[in-house]
Amino acid sequence: MSEFRKDPLSNRWIITLDDKNFVPTTGRALPEDLPVKDDICPFCPGNEDKTGKEIHRVSQPKDGWSIRVIPNNNPYLQVETQLKKKGDAVYDIIAGTGANEVIIETPAHNADLENLTDAHAAELIKVYRARMSDLLKDDRLEYILIFKNKGSRAGANLAHPHSQLMAMPVIPKTISDEMAEAQQYYGFKTRCPFCDTLESELASRSRLVKETENFISFVPFASRTPFEMWIMPKHHTSHFHHINDNMCAQLGSLLKDSITRVNKALNYPPYNYMIHTAPSKSPDIPFFHWHIEILPRVKSIAGFEWGSGFYINPTLPEESAEYLRGL
Amino acid sequence: MSEFRKDPLSNRWIITLDDKNFVPTTGRALPEDLPVKDDICPFCPGNEDKTGKEIHRVSQPKDGWSIRVIPNNNPYLQVETQLKKKGDAVYDIIAGTGANEVIIETPAHNADLENLTDAHAAELIKVYRARMSDLLKDDRLEYILIFKNKGSRAGANLAHPHSQLMAMPVIPKTISDEMAEAQQYYGFKTRCPFCDTLESELASRSRLVKETENFISFVPFASRTPFEMWIMPKHHTSHFHHINDNMCAQLGSLLKDSITRVNKALNYPPYNYMIHTAPSKSPDIPFFHWHIEILPRVKSIAGFEWGSGFYINPTLPEESAEYLRGL
Repeated sequence: MSEFRKDPLSNRWIITLDDKNFVPTTGRALPEDLPVKDDICPFCPGNEDKTGKEIHRVSQPKDGWSIRVIPNNNPYLQVETQLKKKGDAVYDIIAGTGANEVIIETPAHNADLENLTDAHAAELIKVYRARMSDLLKDDRLEYILIFKNKGSRAGANLAHPHSQLMAMPVIPKTISDEMAEAQQYYGFKTRCPFCDTLESELASRSRLVKETENFISFVPFASRTPFEMWIMPKHHTSHFHHINDNMCAQLGSLLKDSITRVNKALNYPPYNYMIHTAPSKSPDIPFFHWHIEILPRVKSIAGFEWGSGFYINPTLPEESAEYLRGL
Repeated sequence: MSEFRKDPLSNRWIITLDDKNFVPTTGRALPEDLPVKDDICPFCPGNEDKTGKEIHRVSQPKDGWSIRVIPNNNPYLQVETQLKKKGDAVYDIIAGTGANEVIIETPAHNADLENLTDAHAAELIKVYRARMSDLLKDDRLEYILIFKNKGSRAGANLAHPHSQLMAMPVIPKTISDEMAEAQQYYGFKTRCPFCDTLESELASRSRLVKETENFISFVPFASRTPFEMWIMPKHHTSHFHHINDNMCAQLGSLLKDSITRVNKALNYPPYNYMIHTAPSKSPDIPFFHWHIEILPRVKSIAGFEWGSGFYINPTLPEESAEYLRGL
């Protein structure tokens, strides 16, 4: 029997059903025979001159670099654009001020997070932190979103492993919705709904996948897709970029662990992950708790999802978690 | 140069840019050689016994029927389910009470809306109205969503032309978000933001595609996808099911006209359309105006869209409108 489940952190319901006939629409986001190095790939070593001016680099004595940050080749947003806001009849417009950076995660063309060493994964988290901290200095930017697209069905144009950063002069709807809902909860209960979620998950353990000293990974109660996973710090903290080096190392390993499990469960599906953090300029918020959301893209977004903002998940989150734990 | 544009009816911004290199990811949602009739298709004439018990039919003396409404074979929601709400730790659950119907739009397996006669398209709108009016009698249902998925990338499992209806015990997030934003606007200006949008579009005409006695079709200012189109009644009315027969006829023709233009512009893309109407139980609302949103699915939903609730549109809505007007 199906049921509506409400995401406690947003006004979003999903419909779960236990559909034994569900077949994921796709797997193998990358061709199996992808080379280690591709001559025409602008993200491969040796082709550094094909990208824009390097913004950040993690150097390696032997290979030159292990991680590079570059501007998007065809940037949607640019820091050079003057921040201007204007109206046009009933409409509102803001100039495309911001930044759009690409984080090349590894020199290896055919790698995924699961192939990186733990130390390399930790460096990647530190690069996310460094780029966020740097861009926070620009007072015009209200939000910095870090996300990853893996596989063309998840929106990636290039196979070489990379994440992206978008710094924007406006707070994303997803985040303001989440914050508004969390604030209502806090107003009523005087507790952070993310902390309550964490306690629920640690108490029941039915949706928990892994627990480390400072983090948990779990399948959320109202998962939008089969095998959706979230990573959440155990201690209340609203801004991602406040994590220390020890937590970067733990988060890198856990992100790698989570992606490896999703890859095994769904045969290397296309996926997205996004870091949800509090808006750049806000002080610590008692009702917001940063976290990472991982969404395997194995189900189409159809008219129901567009029209309702709800999702239909043909798998039970508790069963997905049990399966992921066993891998 | 790119700019952020705010949808005046929701807290959603899109980034427009004028990308001359943009190539739609796909076209031809259906194989070109689709037969008029398919022996194993449960929606084709002669296979009526392969569907659940017929809910509604538009009879035709010669062919038996022109439109049929049936329950979804594998329904997510059922009226037989008792409405129960409960909590589980921090979480909220509602039993899957509701309805999930399929509207078979035509006996022809290979048709699209553009192939129907105007009279047939009018009948389809009347069927939408009839099913909505009927389900509104069930006091447990808070919202009735009618939508269409065309092509597998837009979420359709079967090629035979069909729309769907989901009746739910909870108001969709998309609608409550839109209403909350509209109410804020109304509180400030004492005018309906949809009516103001209509006036803007009729005044500038730069995004207008077609105007009839009672409706307009236009490319919205903050289009999420290339060639997104909306159809809106000219007179303020919050509930779709209040339309009269004359308006059904006009809407049928205009919906057909819009789909035909989108098909021509993008070579038969996958698409979704959704009817946005006010919640079932609410009286007339001064700040909400029903409308239809048509979304060609020619761009992936990636981490940016998931993480922000914003969209990147590589085409200028004004140019899309000009192109659509010329077809």
